[in-house]
Amino acid sequence: MIDPRLRQQIDFILEIDRLKEITRRTYLASGNRRENTAEHSWHLAMLVMVLGEYAAEPIDVGHTMKLVLVHDIVEIDAGDTFAYDTDGNNSKSKRETAAADRIFGLLPPDQAQSMRALWDEFEARATPEARFANVVDRLMPMLHNFYTDGKGWSEHGVTIDRVVERNQTIVAEGSPVLWDFVEHLLKVAIAKGYLKA
Amino acid sequence: MIDPRLRQQIDFILEIDRLKEITRRTYLASGNRRENTAEHSWHLAMLVMVLGEYAAEPIDVGHTMKLVLVHDIVEIDAGDTFAYDTDGNNSKSKRETAAADRIFGLLPPDQAQSMRALWDEFEARATPEARFANVVDRLMPMLHNFYTDGKGWSEHGVTIDRVVERNQTIVAEGSPVLWDFVEHLLKVAIAKGYLKA
Repeated sequence: MIDPRLRQQIDFILEIDRLKEITRRTYLASGNRRENTAEHSWHLAMLVMVLGEYAAEPIDVGHTMKLVLVHDIVEIDAGDTFAYDTDGNNSKSKRETAAADRIFGLLPPDQAQSMRALWDEFEARATPEARFANVVDRLMPMLHNFYTDGKGWSEHGVTIDRVVERNQTIVAEGSPVLWDFVEHLLKVAIAKGYLKA
Repeated sequence: MIDPRLRQQIDFILEIDRLKEITRRTYLASGNRRENTAEHSWHLAMLVMVLGEYAAEPIDVGHTMKLVLVHDIVEIDAGDTFAYDTDGNNSKSKRETAAADRIFGLLPPDQAQSMRALWDEFEARATPEARFANVVDRLMPMLHNFYTDGKGWSEHGVTIDRVVERNQTIVAEGSPVLWDFVEHLLKVAIAKGYLKA
């Protein structure tokens, strides 16, 4: 009754609904609850639209939006790996590759391939679009932490040197302007006691 | 310390975080909870990527994604108006226009204008992109209702004639293929007792 191609596309659309139930460590700016990965992905696409002018190199905004919308879908199977969880990050790549095979594989082959290519591009950070997509993915959790008085940082005992180590290269290379802003934010965070020196 | 333009952009980014706390009437496909407007917007952008080939006229996928990502931001002030709430829908336009003025007005003037233009375009349905953006906005709640055995429909006593009245013109004009699919879905929904005839 339903065309097989459309059936596969609908199955994929229903499967990715589960991303709304993957919980991240970061709190909403209101502090009311932790955020989920689907709404985080929406927010990143909005950051791309609003902050794209600060990319180190010119970017295709629409393509960069696709990268951020797709980049975390693998978490449906692989879960959210906390940024400062060393063991988790060691096994992350293997778990996420298996997830990408299964989830993007629900789509018709041509779309499975193009969706997978977006995910690979984000991970490889070899294009201006992927570099800037990674910038907003690093920036937003720092903003959420800052504007909840360091709630996520303090719950996990995260210190300034780990924040800088994890984020500096990626943010500074992809957007010197936004790294300047982050440095200012982190100084204030330390002064206010949101983040340990 | 922070450039005034960047300050405005960051203020907007933090303000729209509140969209994650606007609850819709529709349940997730798992039925575990109602969905929020931010994660719904992410899902629609994914539908645009996956189902864009079924648009009645060729569309710019990136631009259509922008339309769906932005179209519900006004709900931060205006709330979600239930599709089948007649009184609410009569006052909706006024409430949402005031919301658009305030929220997009947080941005620097050039971006406020372009963001507002996206919202206006979605609402006016005068471009192929806006017509297809409205198709996915109508399609997804029907899918969520169908795959939760009619949970949202039955809670609000929604009947088939109201579903058809609300959705047929917009979906059938924007995508004849997807309207055929919806008609099939609605027939099954009635046969299974998810929706009242």
